Amino acid sequence: MKLLEDRIKRDGTVLPGEVLKVDNFLNHQVDPKLMYEIGAEFKRLFEDAGVTRILTVESSGIAPALMAGLQLNVPVVFARKHRSLTLTDNLYTATVYSYTKQVNNDISIDKRFIDSDDKILIIDDFLANGQAVQGMLEICKAAQVKVAGVGVVIEKRFQKGHQMVLDQGIHLEALASIASLDNNQVSFADSETN
Amino acid sequence: MKLLEDRIKRDGTVLPGEVLKVDNFLNHQVDPKLMYEIGAEFKRLFEDAGVTRILTVESSGIAPALMAGLQLNVPVVFARKHRSLTLTDNLYTATVYSYTKQVNNDISIDKRFIDSDDKILIIDDFLANGQAVQGMLEICKAAQVKVAGVGVVIEKRFQKGHQMVLDQGIHLEALASIASLDNNQVSFADSETN
Repeated sequence: MKLLEDRIKRDGTVLPGEVLKVDNFLNHQVDPKLMYEIGAEFKRLFEDAGVTRILTVESSGIAPALMAGLQLNVPVVFARKHRSLTLTDNLYTATVYSYTKQVNNDISIDKRFIDSDDKILIIDDFLANGQAVQGMLEICKAAQVKVAGVGVVIEKRFQKGHQMVLDQGIHLEALASIASLDNNQVSFADSETN
Repeated sequence: MKLLEDRIKRDGTVLPGEVLKVDNFLNHQVDPKLMYEIGAEFKRLFEDAGVTRILTVESSGIAPALMAGLQLNVPVVFARKHRSLTLTDNLYTATVYSYTKQVNNDISIDKRFIDSDDKILIIDDFLANGQAVQGMLEICKAAQVKVAGVGVVIEKRFQKGHQMVLDQGIHLEALASIASLDNNQVSFADSETN
């Protein structure tokens, strides 16, 4: 998605440890018009997939998921993060390891917000090591629902999340796919293969 | 806002302790079309207020804030919640007490995302005791910026947040204003005075 790649080039910052900081338009300050276009692009990519509901995880996934939901005309559920849960009877939960914070968090959704005949589109802001996406896939598995696909705004293709999703036979779309952050430069993967 | 009041009547649940549960369309599952209309209503109410940026707090504030930002064509910043912060040099922070969880959290935003000439619209999903809104007002005060107003999706007018905002001479708009939850019934305040 050229609009997004241009924005990453203009406003993104590469930090040590292969971190791409895009907090001025994606995950702290948010550009609503860009998010709207991102939602339109997710619609274009998934409109034939029979999506009935979108699943994301708080907080940075909410904006792109909401705009995708607006465009696809389906409800959006955002999983909550918790340190740990004691009462989980009416929840689907999964444990997600955060590489940046080096802690385990549980993510959960209320069982009322996933139906057995749902076809779920998983949306998130970033795909790096894939822990959050994997947690959402586990929730879908526990709920025994179909997964229409995984859509992420930005993927770091050189980290393991990309392959992990593909290895499960799941349709993956990244609106910007980063091949490398070497020498503090953003190099995009060939956009034809996104 | 009639659309919202109707939805609260249809899908809201009153729980003991004067809790209104609306997690099926506002703060766990989100209805994107309703959020879009909520954004349009915030635009109608604040379009002459000279808003340059919207401030909200993760996670439930993000959806209505994003749609308000889309309609008003301004960026949205969401404050992050933390247990406590050690390094705060480049952050504006405030401490927010959660009555539901009975803990103090810090909320913070990066100083890069508020300018001295900003006129900030504060958006949140709920106004009850007003702690989150008060924290955002403190951040605006620390940043020495003007506040265009406070817009909330639902206020519990019988709790102290409503009056606390008005006492500071701030323009407050609630899209649904609840006068009472007595006997597990939702009673709206006269919508003419919202």
